Amino acid sequence: MDISGNGRRWDLRNANREQRMQRAAAVLGDACRGKVVEAGRIQDLLHSVLESGDRVCLEGNNQKQADFLAKALTKLDPGRVNGLHMLLSVLALPEHLDIFENGIASRLDFSFSGPQAVRLARLVAAGKLNIGAIHTYLELFGRYFVDLTPRVALVAAQAADRHGNLYTGPNTEDTPAIVEATAFSGGIVIAQVNQIVDVLPRVDIPADWVGFVVQAPTPHYIEPLFTRDPAQISDIQILMAMMAIKGIYAEYQVQRLNHGIGFDTAAIELILPTYAASLGLKGKICQHWALNPHPALIPAIEAGFVESIHSFGSELGMEDYIRARSDVFFVGPDGSMRSNRAFSQMAGHYACDMFIGSTLQIDLQGNSSTATAGRIAGFGGAPNMGADARGRRHASPGWLKAGRQARDGKNLIPRGQKLVVQIVETFREHMQPAFVERLDAWELAEQADMAIPPVMIYGEDVSHILTEEGLANLLLCRTDEEREQAVRGVAGYTPIGLGRDKRMVENLRDRGIIQRPEDLGIDKRLATRDLLAAKNMKDLVRASGGLYDPPKRFRNW
Amino acid sequence: MDISGNGRRWDLRNANREQRMQRAAAVLGDACRGKVVEAGRIQDLLHSVLESGDRVCLEGNNQKQADFLAKALTKLDPGRVNGLHMLLSVLALPEHLDIFENGIASRLDFSFSGPQAVRLARLVAAGKLNIGAIHTYLELFGRYFVDLTPRVALVAAQAADRHGNLYTGPNTEDTPAIVEATAFSGGIVIAQVNQIVDVLPRVDIPADWVGFVVQAPTPHYIEPLFTRDPAQISDIQILMAMMAIKGIYAEYQVQRLNHGIGFDTAAIELILPTYAASLGLKGKICQHWALNPHPALIPAIEAGFVESIHSFGSELGMEDYIRARSDVFFVGPDGSMRSNRAFSQMAGHYACDMFIGSTLQIDLQGNSSTATAGRIAGFGGAPNMGADARGRRHASPGWLKAGRQARDGKNLIPRGQKLVVQIVETFREHMQPAFVERLDAWELAEQADMAIPPVMIYGEDVSHILTEEGLANLLLCRTDEEREQAVRGVAGYTPIGLGRDKRMVENLRDRGIIQRPEDLGIDKRLATRDLLAAKNMKDLVRASGGLYDPPKRFRNW
Repeated sequence: MDISGNGRRWDLRNANREQRMQRAAAVLGDACRGKVVEAGRIQDLLHSVLESGDRVCLEGNNQKQADFLAKALTKLDPGRVNGLHMLLSVLALPEHLDIFENGIASRLDFSFSGPQAVRLARLVAAGKLNIGAIHTYLELFGRYFVDLTPRVALVAAQAADRHGNLYTGPNTEDTPAIVEATAFSGGIVIAQVNQIVDVLPRVDIPADWVGFVVQAPTPHYIEPLFTRDPAQISDIQILMAMMAIKGIYAEYQVQRLNHGIGFDTAAIELILPTYAASLGLKGKICQHWALNPHPALIPAIEAGFVESIHSFGSELGMEDYIRARSDVFFVGPDGSMRSNRAFSQMAGHYACDMFIGSTLQIDLQGNSSTATAGRIAGFGGAPNMGADARGRRHASPGWLKAGRQARDGKNLIPRGQKLVVQIVETFREHMQPAFVERLDAWELAEQADMAIPPVMIYGEDVSHILTEEGLANLLLCRTDEEREQAVRGVAGYTPIGLGRDKRMVENLRDRGIIQRPEDLGIDKRLATRDLLAAKNMKDLVRASGGLYDPPKRFRNW
Repeated sequence: MDISGNGRRWDLRNANREQRMQRAAAVLGDACRGKVVEAGRIQDLLHSVLESGDRVCLEGNNQKQADFLAKALTKLDPGRVNGLHMLLSVLALPEHLDIFENGIASRLDFSFSGPQAVRLARLVAAGKLNIGAIHTYLELFGRYFVDLTPRVALVAAQAADRHGNLYTGPNTEDTPAIVEATAFSGGIVIAQVNQIVDVLPRVDIPADWVGFVVQAPTPHYIEPLFTRDPAQISDIQILMAMMAIKGIYAEYQVQRLNHGIGFDTAAIELILPTYAASLGLKGKICQHWALNPHPALIPAIEAGFVESIHSFGSELGMEDYIRARSDVFFVGPDGSMRSNRAFSQMAGHYACDMFIGSTLQIDLQGNSSTATAGRIAGFGGAPNMGADARGRRHASPGWLKAGRQARDGKNLIPRGQKLVVQIVETFREHMQPAFVERLDAWELAEQADMAIPPVMIYGEDVSHILTEEGLANLLLCRTDEEREQAVRGVAGYTPIGLGRDKRMVENLRDRGIIQRPEDLGIDKRLATRDLLAAKNMKDLVRASGGLYDPPKRFRNW
C-alpha cells in the first residue's frame, strides 16, 4: 500500500485489480488453472471481475469478433453488473447491442457500426444507450491511453498456451493496442481463444499482459469484409478506374497508397496488370500499400506490380497465398501474417501519398458522409486515411505536386499535401443521387443530438472527386464558387449536376480543373470488362496458383 | 522454397535471412548459445548478419541509446560492409555519425538530430551522407511498415532471458515499433541488454521476434531530457504561464494535452497547484496527459490535478516515484512504467486537445522552425502534436470552440480544431529576436538541397502565439494582414514587433484577437517565482516525498 504525505493512496487501481482477481479465484476454484478458465464458468468469471460502471473494451473489430465473450456479457445479471461503459471499434454483432438492450451497459464509445447502424439509432432514441462519441480507429485507440482507458478488456486470439501467452496469428487487428492500454493501467485482460496448445506458433501477446484465457466452444467469428467478386464489376467502374490510373496515379506518381473498400477500388486493382501495365506504369506506381489482403490485388501482385503490403487485419481464404508470398506481406517466423490495425493506420496516415475511397453522399463543398437518417454508421478508418497528415514532413513527388497545386498563388510557405480521392458513380443503387444539396448527416446530428454533423471526409481534405463523367481537381480551385462548380461539373444528371453553370464548368475544363475521359486521352470504348485481369472468383483462384481459398459464399462456380 | 507459376520466387527475404543466420552460426560457433552472443564477438555477428546496402534501423531514441551496438557498427570493416541505409529516430551520439564518417553507411532517414545537428550538416556538405528525409517520429515509424522496412534492427533493452525475451522496462520508447516492422518482414533483430536474467520482471518483446541478444559491457545510455531545474525559471516565464492558464487552458477547458520540452512549459506545470488552483481550475483543466514523466509535474500530481499520464519514454530518477503513483502512470505488473512512443504520439495527436511548445524562430505567417543555418536539427515529435488531427471526429468543448472560432463566417461545415500554442519570449538568448521576416529554414533548405524549407510548425496549424507581451489568437484572424499584425502585435521590441501597424493592433485588441496580461485580468506584480510550487530541485524531491531521485548533475544542494 502506498500512502503519500498527504494521506492519499496512489495504487487504488492495482489494489482494486487484486480484489477482482481474488473474487475470481474464490468463485472459480478448480475451474481456473493458472490463467485458464473453463468455458462453462465464463459468467462467473465476468460477474466476479466486472464492477458496475466499468469501462469495458470488447474486441469488436472490423473483422475479428470476441463473439463468445460478447454473448457471455449479454447474459450477465443486470442486478449485479450494470451501467458498463463499452468501448468497441466496431459494432458488428447483434450481441454488441443486446448488452445495452439487456441493461448491462449504458454508454458507448465506438468507431463503426455498419450492420448495426439502424438498431443503434433506435436504442439511442429509446434512451437505452448513450453515445460518448463516434471516432476513427486511431483516435479511439489514442483515447485508450488518455481518457478512455479500459478497466477490463475482452479480446479474441487464435490460440493460447497454458501460461497465457497469446497467438493472434494473421488476425491480430486491434488486439495489441487494446491489451497494452489495459494491462499497463491495472486493468484485466480476458482472452477467448480457439484452442489451447502446448507450444504456440509464435507469441503475439506476452502472458504477463493477460489475466485470463478461455477456450471458446467455437472459433471466433471473422468477416471476409474485403472480398469483392470481380464478376460484379461494371464497365462504368472500369472507366472510372482508368481515369483514376491515368489522371491521378500516373499524374502524381503514386507509389504508396491505401484503397478504401468496394467495387470501384477493386476495379482499379484488377486493371493494374492490364491497363496500367499497357501505359508502362509497372514499377512507377502502386508499389507499397497499407491495405488488407484484398483478393482483387492477386493479379497485380503476381504481375510484379506490388512490393509490399502492410495490413490492418487479414482476409479469410488468403492465408496460404500470404504464406507463399512472404516477400510481399508482413509474415511471422511461423509463416502466418502479422496484421496490426494501429500501426497500419499510422502507416496509412503518415506514409501514404494517396487514399481513394467511395462514399454515399457528397455535398457542394465536397463534404462526404455515409451517415443517413436513422442510421448511425460511424467512420471506421476512412477519415484517418482520407485527410492530410499535417504532421508529415518527408517529401515525395506526388505529395509535393499536390501541395504546389493547392498553394500556388497563395501567401503561404511551401508544403506538401496528401491526395484524397472520392470515387463515386453519380447515382448509387435505387437511383439515389450521390450528390446532394445537404448531407443527411445534418438531420442525423439533430436526431442523435450530436454537436456537429458526422462528416466522413471533409471537402477541405478532398483533393479529387472522380465520377463516370470526369475527374475534378479541387486542389486547383481558388474560390468557393469554383469548388462548387467543380463538384457540379462531375455530378452528371443528378439535380446537382444539372444545376451547373455551363460556362464556368467549361472554363474549369479549359484550366484542367475538370477532366473528361477524352481530356485524359482515354478511349471509352476500351472501358469494358475485358480489361479485368480476373473476371470472377475462379480467375482469382487461378491467378493465385490455387493458393487463394475463397469462403464458401464466394464460391459460385 | 516457393515458386509460383511464373517461375518467380516469393520468399527471398526469408531465404536471405536464413543465409545470414547460418553465416552467423558458422562464424560464432560456441560464442552463440541459443540467441545469446558473447559481447566480444559483436563485430563478427554484425559482419556476418549485415550485407552492404542494407536498411538498418539503429535504436537512437529521444532518450535511450543502443550505444554498444552503435559503437560496434563504427568499427566494422567498410570493405566488407558499406553503403548502409541508416534509419534512426534520433542522432544523439557521435557514433551515429562516425558510421558515416567511417564509410560504413551512406544514407540516412531520421527524425531529430539535436546534439549532432552541426556535424550532420558538415557531413552532408562533404558528400559523406545523403539524407533521405527528415521526419516526425510517427511518420518514420509509419514508413518502417511501408517503404523503409529495416532488414536489420539494432535495439536496446534493460534485460533479456536466455530464450531471448526482452524486458524494456520504463524506457520502452521506440522498441516495439522497430522490432515489429523488422521481425515480421524477414528481418533480424539484435538487442543489446544490460543484463541477462533467468526470469524477467515482465516480457515486453517476445523472444520469437528477436534474433540475437548481447549483454553489453555497460548499461545503455539514457538522457534525462525532460528534467528542468525550477531554479532557472524566470518571472517572465511565470507571467507567460499565467497567461497560458487563464487565456487558453481555462478558456478552452483543456483537459487532455501535451507539453513541449522547456522552461516555459515547466513554469506552467509548476504553477498549476498555486495559480491555477487559486482560479478554481483543479479538476477542470489538465487531467489527462500524453507526456514524458516531467519532474516539474510532481507538485501538480501531488495536489491531485492529474488523473493520468501516458509517456513516450521515461525520465531518469522518476522510477520510484512512478512506481508509487501507479494510479497516474501506465505501470506494468512488475511496478515499472510502460512507455511507448508510437502509441503516445498517436494519443497526443488524436486524443489531446492542445499542444503547447517553444520554438526558435517565428515568421510573419506564424510558421516556426528550430532549423538555423548550418544545423540540420530535425523535428522530433512536435509537428505531430502541433498540428490539427484532421482524421479526428470526437468532440470536446475546447476542440469545438477552436473550430468555431476558426470557421465562423466562412462557408464551411462545422468542425473542431486542435489548439496549437507557440510560447516564446520575444528575444531568445544572446538577444536574438524570436520573430523574423524570413526563417533561417529557407537558407538551410538551399544549403542542404531540400525540396521545401524545414518548417517545424506551420502557421496554418498554430492557434495561438504567446509572448511576454501578450496572447495572439490566430484562429480569429480572417485575412493574411490581420494574421501578420496579430504576430507583430505580440512581438515586443523585436524589429517585427516595432514594425506593427499600431491602429490595426489596437483594433485586434478590441476584438480580443490580441490580449495583454491586463486584458486577461492578470496582475503582473504577482508574476514572481513565489508562484512556483517548487523553486528548485530539492523542492521537487521534497514534493515527491523523497521518491524522486534526480540525476547527479541536477543535484545542486
